[in-house]
Amino acid sequence: MTETTSTGNRSLFSAATLHEAAGRVGALPARLRPAYAGATFSGPARPVVCPQGDNLWLHRGVYAAQPGEVLVVATTGEEEYGYWGEILSVAAASRGLGGLVLDGGVRDTEVLGQVGFPVFAATTCMRGTIKDPEAGGGFPERVTIGGITIAKGDMVVGDADGVVALPKARVDEVLKASREREDKEASMMAALRAGASTIELMGLTP
Amino acid sequence: MTETTSTGNRSLFSAATLHEAAGRVGALPARLRPAYAGATFSGPARPVVCPQGDNLWLHRGVYAAQPGEVLVVATTGEEEYGYWGEILSVAAASRGLGGLVLDGGVRDTEVLGQVGFPVFAATTCMRGTIKDPEAGGGFPERVTIGGITIAKGDMVVGDADGVVALPKARVDEVLKASREREDKEASMMAALRAGASTIELMGLTP
Amino acid sequence: MTETTSTGNRSLFSAATLHEAAGRVGALPARLRPAYAGATFSGPARPVVCPQGDNLWLHRGVYAAQPGEVLVVATTGEEEYGYWGEILSVAAASRGLGGLVLDGGVRDTEVLGQVGFPVFAATTCMRGTIKDPEAGGGFPERVTIGGITIAKGDMVVGDADGVVALPKARVDEVLKASREREDKEASMMAALRAGASTIELMGLTP
Amino acid sequence: MTETTSTGNRSLFSAATLHEAAGRVGALPARLRPAYAGATFSGPARPVVCPQGDNLWLHRGVYAAQPGEVLVVATTGEEEYGYWGEILSVAAASRGLGGLVLDGGVRDTEVLGQVGFPVFAATTCMRGTIKDPEAGGGFPERVTIGGITIAKGDMVVGDADGVVALPKARVDEVLKASREREDKEASMMAALRAGASTIELMGLTP
Amino acid sequence: MTETTSTGNRSLFSAATLHEAAGRVGALPARLRPAYAGATFSGPARPVVCPQGDNLWLHRGVYAAQPGEVLVVATTGEEEYGYWGEILSVAAASRGLGGLVLDGGVRDTEVLGQVGFPVFAATTCMRGTIKDPEAGGGFPERVTIGGITIAKGDMVVGDADGVVALPKARVDEVLKASREREDKEASMMAALRAGASTIELMGLTP
Amino acid sequence: MTETTSTGNRSLFSAATLHEAAGRVGALPARLRPAYAGATFSGPARPVVCPQGDNLWLHRGVYAAQPGEVLVVATTGEEEYGYWGEILSVAAASRGLGGLVLDGGVRDTEVLGQVGFPVFAATTCMRGTIKDPEAGGGFPERVTIGGITIAKGDMVVGDADGVVALPKARVDEVLKASREREDKEASMMAALRAGASTIELMGLTP
Repeated sequence: MTETTSTGNRSLFSAATLHEAAGRVGALPARLRPAYAGATFSGPARPVVCPQGDNLWLHRGVYAAQPGEVLVVATTGEEEYGYWGEILSVAAASRGLGGLVLDGGVRDTEVLGQVGFPVFAATTCMRGTIKDPEAGGGFPERVTIGGITIAKGDMVVGDADGVVALPKARVDEVLKASREREDKEASMMAALRAGASTIELMGLTP
Repeated sequence: MTETTSTGNRSLFSAATLHEAAGRVGALPARLRPAYAGATFSGPARPVVCPQGDNLWLHRGVYAAQPGEVLVVATTGEEEYGYWGEILSVAAASRGLGGLVLDGGVRDTEVLGQVGFPVFAATTCMRGTIKDPEAGGGFPERVTIGGITIAKGDMVVGDADGVVALPKARVDEVLKASREREDKEASMMAALRAGASTIELMGLTP
Repeated sequence: MTETTSTGNRSLFSAATLHEAAGRVGALPARLRPAYAGATFSGPARPVVCPQGDNLWLHRGVYAAQPGEVLVVATTGEEEYGYWGEILSVAAASRGLGGLVLDGGVRDTEVLGQVGFPVFAATTCMRGTIKDPEAGGGFPERVTIGGITIAKGDMVVGDADGVVALPKARVDEVLKASREREDKEASMMAALRAGASTIELMGLTP
Repeated sequence: MTETTSTGNRSLFSAATLHEAAGRVGALPARLRPAYAGATFSGPARPVVCPQGDNLWLHRGVYAAQPGEVLVVATTGEEEYGYWGEILSVAAASRGLGGLVLDGGVRDTEVLGQVGFPVFAATTCMRGTIKDPEAGGGFPERVTIGGITIAKGDMVVGDADGVVALPKARVDEVLKASREREDKEASMMAALRAGASTIELMGLTP
Repeated sequence: MTETTSTGNRSLFSAATLHEAAGRVGALPARLRPAYAGATFSGPARPVVCPQGDNLWLHRGVYAAQPGEVLVVATTGEEEYGYWGEILSVAAASRGLGGLVLDGGVRDTEVLGQVGFPVFAATTCMRGTIKDPEAGGGFPERVTIGGITIAKGDMVVGDADGVVALPKARVDEVLKASREREDKEASMMAALRAGASTIELMGLTP
Repeated sequence: MTETTSTGNRSLFSAATLHEAAGRVGALPARLRPAYAGATFSGPARPVVCPQGDNLWLHRGVYAAQPGEVLVVATTGEEEYGYWGEILSVAAASRGLGGLVLDGGVRDTEVLGQVGFPVFAATTCMRGTIKDPEAGGGFPERVTIGGITIAKGDMVVGDADGVVALPKARVDEVLKASREREDKEASMMAALRAGASTIELMGLTP
């Protein structure tokens, strides 16, 4: 479901299309946004938990993950911290990771786009973090963000509309449904441009 | 109060100028932002109510509204949904509508700017919606957003500073006051650049 | 599932028990709280939509609903208004309605408890409302609050833990499961008091 | 710094006094409130991390903690769940634990006060949780809530004003300063009642 | 418009009635709540500005205000601090002030009710404040809270529904309208109890 | 610590680097963002307090401040207003001020970038302000925003990651530490690109 481009792996279908094709499930919270314009990713999830204000497990995660995997990171609590910046982006890019989804803040946002490693986060914040090995954190099999549970190996895809997570077992089925949905939308778009209305095309007459 | 350009109708005065000229009224909540850089609109309002997570009345609205009219949409509740996307933008553009103001989320934000139909919304969210004819929703004469009541035919204008609504009966008066305000600001700007201070120009001496 | 007491209808099972027995679904947002200590209700839902700052459809709803029905009310937008107060509580009590769940504000909170009609709302706010017949609003078949869709006739139950909604078709099954759950919890509580641990009782050993 | 009463351990000094005497540090976020009127606790902290929507580590914590210890629990993410209820309160009380501070939701709030085990939480919510051993969570040495780091054995005290955490090494010093502060406040209160002003008593003259 | 009772001055009309009688204006934000059950006040406003985390001007305000006046306090910024507690309540009560409306946090909430001085605030928070004479703050003629401007001498009234502010020049008119409104509501309540509906009483038939 | 460029003064070190080098202190709230892409500033702080919805003290501040100084502005309350726009930016630029940090809203955002005066604010909002000399406001020696106290003459620096404030007395020390940190990060980045891991470089092995 992915093509590899100079700016990383890009899904053949948009996050919104995959979400719809999956039956309208798996949309992560809207606060998770690309840290720079044009960031996109697609790959298997690697769950991480970070304690509040601590990014030790992001460093460990960069080296524990397989190339192509996307770190999907829950943090404890809503305080503002910048857990990720230029150094981690350079490290993750050199390891060939697929991307970062972080329910917390990032910094060095001016240069993250130049590095080109796709970062999705909840906010921009400079406040620094520590690295305390006794503060919890780790690599669980499953992580829950915004009520959506993401297991290791689930497919996660991010683009300008946010991030969607798809259970590994459903990927083939969702890709097939996405292809059908795209075909249907393309013919609908053509019909619209030829003068049809969505009311008739979708059967929405009162 | 409007000129028609290739990217839609653009008000001769900025939303902020109209708001001030009207006596500092009519500013919709700051959360309503352009979905892509440079989006602007100006036109008569067409009120719509959407039930939470349901965009049937946006489809119906696109075909019920007159060319030039701006759909002004209240939704029930603050949950995250993407009520509007590429297909509706294409449909609305082909119908010649003036724009969309939606107190909810939109998606396909990467392509909304390419379509060029001006969209103002509260957030970006991929989460899909349904089309339930029994869930309420409709085209009322008046809709209230952020404590501001907008009637059918009221003038609504949006630009980078947000959205302002002006009662139809006050439009001529406000346009006249806007012209005077712009003239005054232009001469003030010239005086500032010539070395004057806003303290003297505005009579703000203690 | 309900017994009628001097303070209205009270569910035989707590809202939390019903929510668990139903498979952990149907919990409305935590912001919906009893307006006075001890308020509880249980009854079939009657969906209502109110436009922002307008309570006309609450008045109409009090007289459109059947005795025992619970008005379940979505409003458009998050502004602060007091949609419901002493007069509507007296009217609803005299009509024998079952309760009110309102995703908005209420007022006269000092006397609502004396009237005894069970009111659950998102906030306390004195700001008054209007009654505009052209502002939308109505009695849909289904209303969605906090992402939970409640249909006319669904069972809604409220107590100190909040409000749960159960699809009408599942009520018998959920009541049976609730009875089993209560029995299980009672024996677990007895075992706990006799020295057992939840770890062994629930099979949580690592 | 604690006396044991029939409703649990109560600090000799209020949380606010300890916070001031410690040099205005250690106040946990104001959202952490007693789950029932009159709840208070004082004891050494036992840090716990719960994954979002999962209370396995609360069950484990009840049996891992020593009598008198207070579970201090961070959760990942701000979604609404009820992590703690009657059964856990009964279990914790029977184990002689000192209290619970939970940055998340609790339920069964009507009966928590009857059980008498002191519970402080961020919200009331019925939504149920799971027990997934592969979802992360654990007993770290330190946990951070609202930017305040609490280590195992630090003194935590809660009352109607919220929760304060004091580093173990500073407890003696803070207790001494609290005594002095209370004495000073008592004489100030007497002076106020005798007609003095806080302006003169505190040297606040302009 | 006020009667003096053992628990302070109490308005003859509720805050909600005055707000309605004034034409639905003057309602302060719903976050301003009584710090203890039953707190009420009525009196002329005395505007105060406090810098964030600084309560010097509350001490000065207690001694600058006239007996009966209500301190109406804006603070800079939304951080959590406890600006007011037992000592200030004792001082204000001994000075005979009418009450406190504080857009910030208070502490010692367990004893504020015993002191009996009416306190309305946005939150409960123990975090202490400083007294820096060079940090701004003061006694302006007018203060704005939640978009509502309150001038020195304006009538402010608080009860379980929140706080309303009425311009001094309109007090007589509003009191008269409140009396009429109360009479009308009393006869409406009697009619309701005798079987009438609000639909007919208020002319709300479709 | 500053170089002067055509778009204003730019710090030799990023805000994030200064924050870290200072010992992870001084980060202002993440809501304070550049009003246009690329805005940066560096200069001594000039504290200002604005009453809610009133920008008189911004006009006075533009003329009271010395060239190079950065207005650091706290406002009372969280309502939405646009305190600053094109005219004030032109006036501040012509006076040679260093920048604006405003805990409130700004407008005319389309042209602020063209004027080139660096503006950092909490939101974009068109709603206009008044100029009431009796509403409080002024130029205190110290202002507190987000719990961080900034004194007149403290160094404030803003870029894409937000705003940091450094006590005047610590500037030399922090600049030295920033230089060391940048050197260390540069060699770390080189090592990363040469194949090293942050785990070994930072000593993070478990």
